[in-house]
Amino acid sequence: MIKVLELKMTVTDSNDRDAEALRNDLKARDVFLINLMSSPGSGKTTLLSRTITDLKDRVKIGVMEADIASDVDAKRINALGAESIQVHTDGMCHMDAGMTREGLDGMESIDSRIVFLENVGNLICPAEFDTGAHKNVMILSLPEGDDKPLKYPLMFKKSDALVITKMDAAPYFDFDLDAVRKRVKAMNPDIRIFPVSAKTGEGMDEWESYILSEWEKWRNA
Amino acid sequence: MIKVLELKMTVTDSNDRDAEALRNDLKARDVFLINLMSSPGSGKTTLLSRTITDLKDRVKIGVMEADIASDVDAKRINALGAESIQVHTDGMCHMDAGMTREGLDGMESIDSRIVFLENVGNLICPAEFDTGAHKNVMILSLPEGDDKPLKYPLMFKKSDALVITKMDAAPYFDFDLDAVRKRVKAMNPDIRIFPVSAKTGEGMDEWESYILSEWEKWRNA
Repeated sequence: MIKVLELKMTVTDSNDRDAEALRNDLKARDVFLINLMSSPGSGKTTLLSRTITDLKDRVKIGVMEADIASDVDAKRINALGAESIQVHTDGMCHMDAGMTREGLDGMESIDSRIVFLENVGNLICPAEFDTGAHKNVMILSLPEGDDKPLKYPLMFKKSDALVITKMDAAPYFDFDLDAVRKRVKAMNPDIRIFPVSAKTGEGMDEWESYILSEWEKWRNA
Repeated sequence: MIKVLELKMTVTDSNDRDAEALRNDLKARDVFLINLMSSPGSGKTTLLSRTITDLKDRVKIGVMEADIASDVDAKRINALGAESIQVHTDGMCHMDAGMTREGLDGMESIDSRIVFLENVGNLICPAEFDTGAHKNVMILSLPEGDDKPLKYPLMFKKSDALVITKMDAAPYFDFDLDAVRKRVKAMNPDIRIFPVSAKTGEGMDEWESYILSEWEKWRNA
């Protein structure tokens, strides 16, 4: 049984303040929150499924799936044995800090683990609202094209890491990886970029090592 | 030189009324407005480019490109010889009827032609706002996956036609076309579905015949 929470937009005068408070509360509970943002259909859930399978013996992982409807993603994650919760955003195209807190409160156990928030599939609104996450990760799938950093600059600027998924489909598409690297680094020099394929496993080691090392760094900070 | 308009959200008590008024004004000027909606990276501009190339000797075509930043799409369209205008939505994830009217007013000539509005790349907000278009067309690219009708039902319900792009990549992805047909028809029995590849030309005839026949039907109505 997948738990589904129906959320309403949190009305508060300061989402930024709520986000900062949530970040601190989670620190006290040893919960490292990673916000995953992307277009619909970028392969977030597939990336997450493989990441959970590969890492679950080394770290506890929870997942919050945010969507406007359906619970198909939470079902996939639950089947892997990671605790997952589905939250619905009442038609809204992003999660704010209050909604994220409510979703976390709805999970059975979250202490001492990494929690991935799979944000609503959208390259615009999620970039504008701090969810309280400790890391923001953007996922761009290769079939979406190498022009996306030009068209949705804010999300590329706000992310700590960029995962480029579906690299195995490279022979089928004109996608200039070097051009993406240059465009993204020009607006966000510190961003880490991970080209991966969850299907073939290409690049998954680097991505998963990054997650583990950021988790360790954050715990020891 | 690409013309770029910066738009602000239209504040009005009734977007639906504005949309209906725009639809009637366009009818009087013999302008058939088609609203194209999709995720980022679904191949809207590529589909449009091929459609323009194939149809430009049979009907006059104009294009309004809506985006939050950049004018890369309008440049591609302009290179084909069709009049195009780029509008920026001030960070907003959709076009409303007032913004659409303003964009059309910014075009040099629009009478007696088909105008395609390439809406902001997003599967959520654009479905909620009537732009004043005569037809709504949704574009889903094969790499996005066959679960999208479950996750973004409103857009599939509101569209007159669904174009499934990048069909040439089928060997690379698990995409169940029959499942998509069933899911979409269950919520919208009258929708027309066109699987195409703008790269190989597969299905383009059916899609383009649909456009021309809807244009003729509408002119004679």
